[in-house]
Amino acid sequence: MRSVLEIATAAKKASRILATSSTSLKNGALSAMADALITNSDTIEAANRIDMDNGAKNGLTSAMLDRLLTDKKRIESMAAGIAEIIKLPDPVGEINGMAKRPNGLSVGKMRVPLGVVGIIYESRPNVTADTSALCLKSGNAVILRGGSEAFESNRAIAKILADAATGAGIAENAISTIPVTDRQASLEMLKLDRYIDIIIPRGGYGLIRFVTENSLIPVIKHDKGVCHVYVDIDADTDMAESITFNSKVQRPGVCNAMETLLVHAGIAEVFLPGMVEKFVKAGVTVRGCEKTCEILPGGAVEAATLKDWDEEYLDLIVSIKIVEDFDAAVDHIANHGSGHTETIVTDNYRTARRFLSEIDSSAVMVNASTRFNDGGEFGLGAEIGISTQKLHARGPMGLAELTSQKFVVMGDGHIRE
Amino acid sequence: MRSVLEIATAAKKASRILATSSTSLKNGALSAMADALITNSDTIEAANRIDMDNGAKNGLTSAMLDRLLTDKKRIESMAAGIAEIIKLPDPVGEINGMAKRPNGLSVGKMRVPLGVVGIIYESRPNVTADTSALCLKSGNAVILRGGSEAFESNRAIAKILADAATGAGIAENAISTIPVTDRQASLEMLKLDRYIDIIIPRGGYGLIRFVTENSLIPVIKHDKGVCHVYVDIDADTDMAESITFNSKVQRPGVCNAMETLLVHAGIAEVFLPGMVEKFVKAGVTVRGCEKTCEILPGGAVEAATLKDWDEEYLDLIVSIKIVEDFDAAVDHIANHGSGHTETIVTDNYRTARRFLSEIDSSAVMVNASTRFNDGGEFGLGAEIGISTQKLHARGPMGLAELTSQKFVVMGDGHIRE
Repeated sequence: MRSVLEIATAAKKASRILATSSTSLKNGALSAMADALITNSDTIEAANRIDMDNGAKNGLTSAMLDRLLTDKKRIESMAAGIAEIIKLPDPVGEINGMAKRPNGLSVGKMRVPLGVVGIIYESRPNVTADTSALCLKSGNAVILRGGSEAFESNRAIAKILADAATGAGIAENAISTIPVTDRQASLEMLKLDRYIDIIIPRGGYGLIRFVTENSLIPVIKHDKGVCHVYVDIDADTDMAESITFNSKVQRPGVCNAMETLLVHAGIAEVFLPGMVEKFVKAGVTVRGCEKTCEILPGGAVEAATLKDWDEEYLDLIVSIKIVEDFDAAVDHIANHGSGHTETIVTDNYRTARRFLSEIDSSAVMVNASTRFNDGGEFGLGAEIGISTQKLHARGPMGLAELTSQKFVVMGDGHIRE
Repeated sequence: MRSVLEIATAAKKASRILATSSTSLKNGALSAMADALITNSDTIEAANRIDMDNGAKNGLTSAMLDRLLTDKKRIESMAAGIAEIIKLPDPVGEINGMAKRPNGLSVGKMRVPLGVVGIIYESRPNVTADTSALCLKSGNAVILRGGSEAFESNRAIAKILADAATGAGIAENAISTIPVTDRQASLEMLKLDRYIDIIIPRGGYGLIRFVTENSLIPVIKHDKGVCHVYVDIDADTDMAESITFNSKVQRPGVCNAMETLLVHAGIAEVFLPGMVEKFVKAGVTVRGCEKTCEILPGGAVEAATLKDWDEEYLDLIVSIKIVEDFDAAVDHIANHGSGHTETIVTDNYRTARRFLSEIDSSAVMVNASTRFNDGGEFGLGAEIGISTQKLHARGPMGLAELTSQKFVVMGDGHIRE
């Protein structure tokens, strides 16, 4: 078994070759990778059965087992995802802003791969395929370190993809996996800043904190989403109801679902009764601030505690707070939001403009559901995740966000005086 | 004396106000700051004398004392630097790529300040003024933690600037300093990722390693420059001599000066004798590989050791290596370079194109001196430093690099199906 250091040095070597591999070579490999997933679906299913059996023995919930399940249909969907990535333009080599300086020197920026991407994830096995394909297309080598519950499935998928890639002429070790799932291996990986250029942790708070505290390598966090809808006094109440409901209910288990609804005091009595009724009918548990409970007595609303304002439920639960005015809504979001996605419902031009300027989140929206914060919806094609930090990439990360820009300078013998 | 935590929370609060302060308010404050430096130059000079006296007592070299010296002329130059920053366009609020999605949703990206910038530096006192002005113009609060040798000078300059800024209507605590210089204070600062958004270390290897190993906050390194000039077999030898000489000698003490000269074996015997003669005449110590010493016997060239290929001399010393071919040059740079600045001298189109694509550095150049890797020369206006990492900003960092981009989304009641 190769050590983490051996894996990382081999990946670095591969990354240098991959950085200048042509788009047609990379697309050919992606096509072979998609085919290989289908051809070898029995192998993947067999590996997945081991994980599913272990999961059942270890007491995973049925929701967790459903996330883990990798059947023919889901394998086809992984292959279809890779086919979509083939269609996306290759960001590598793109030159931006090339302009002449007064002395005649041409200066611009060229997109280049980051190098070696390390990803530490607790998500479903399809992340193995998505990530490998996105990294390969953007010219990066990838080191995958998946969760223990999906160990056999991830290993089978990664091996099939890596074999197909090298079979199609991609440098060996462009796709590799850490063959163990103990924390020691992750820790070793996080210290190899000479070989790994970026670490993307995807998972719960514990994982992200562990990575942040131990990494010498720059980290792009994909942290929790405590997302807000703010219904302004100038909101159209029908639109507000539709956006609020969609933000919470359309897919409650994901990071861009709304967790807290903020309502301007001047519209609360008109808006909230119908809204809460709709939530209750849909099976949503409603936790309200004191004023919300006053407007809606009779048990439909539970009393929220302070803890609720910082909670990412990822479930059919919503907290509701009535705020005195716009500034109170902005303050609440600054103090309790996670900088993920915030939306305002308003017909007031000036209020909309202020919200766009004053809210500091990866996506700030007017009159649209929080659920739109997504690489596909934003037109980036596939995404490797949604960054909640400010450096490098914020919001959905697509192919361009897996690259860096270097300065390119062309002269005719220029020297500095 | 305020604690580091108190300073950071106050800075965070200031950053929220500063983020939406108008360009004219910020420019007015910058103008007041420049004036205040001139008006209070006696105070700065008195503080600087304390540092200079301590430095002399502590045995600083005359070069170090010269770096530390802050006289009237240098104070005027700081004020002139701030005046230049006033002229630069404000990056905050700029919206890029706003386009309609098929469903009618408008999606684009808006530049916003990073928030709170922490800078830990060992450089000359003018960095205090440059950094404060760049951060203020880009809407960021700044926490300055300068070196102990310039403690009194930095404190005096920062206080004058902060007072002038608040006097002109900027939020209090937009510019603050850590009032002690022990490592414990830096360590505390590096853990405050709730309040500080980015840490920029500027200084030697020890400082940068200390910050990287201890920071929970994203770091943008300004690391050493082991820069190369590669003289290709198809180089014009006059141009090669001029660029090589300028890259080494024009200002040897800075990070974009050349440290190692690589020469194609096929041109070495023609090119090197004249080049080395020119170096020796200018007082440059030349350390050559075995082949270089063979071509130039007689003591003009010392034998280089393995250590030389990784060395940042920052001095009138150059190492020379003869390489078999283009690939050997690229390999040497990949193995020994620091990813800062590399230049090729060639008249061959295909070789130039390969160099631009295959070299992975913050700036890659053809037929131009390495000394051009500079914010001013690249047209960015002033720079806060030169980043040697790949994430977020690579190469000279100007105002735009002190901002982040958030997605802004405008709909008409859009919900996701």
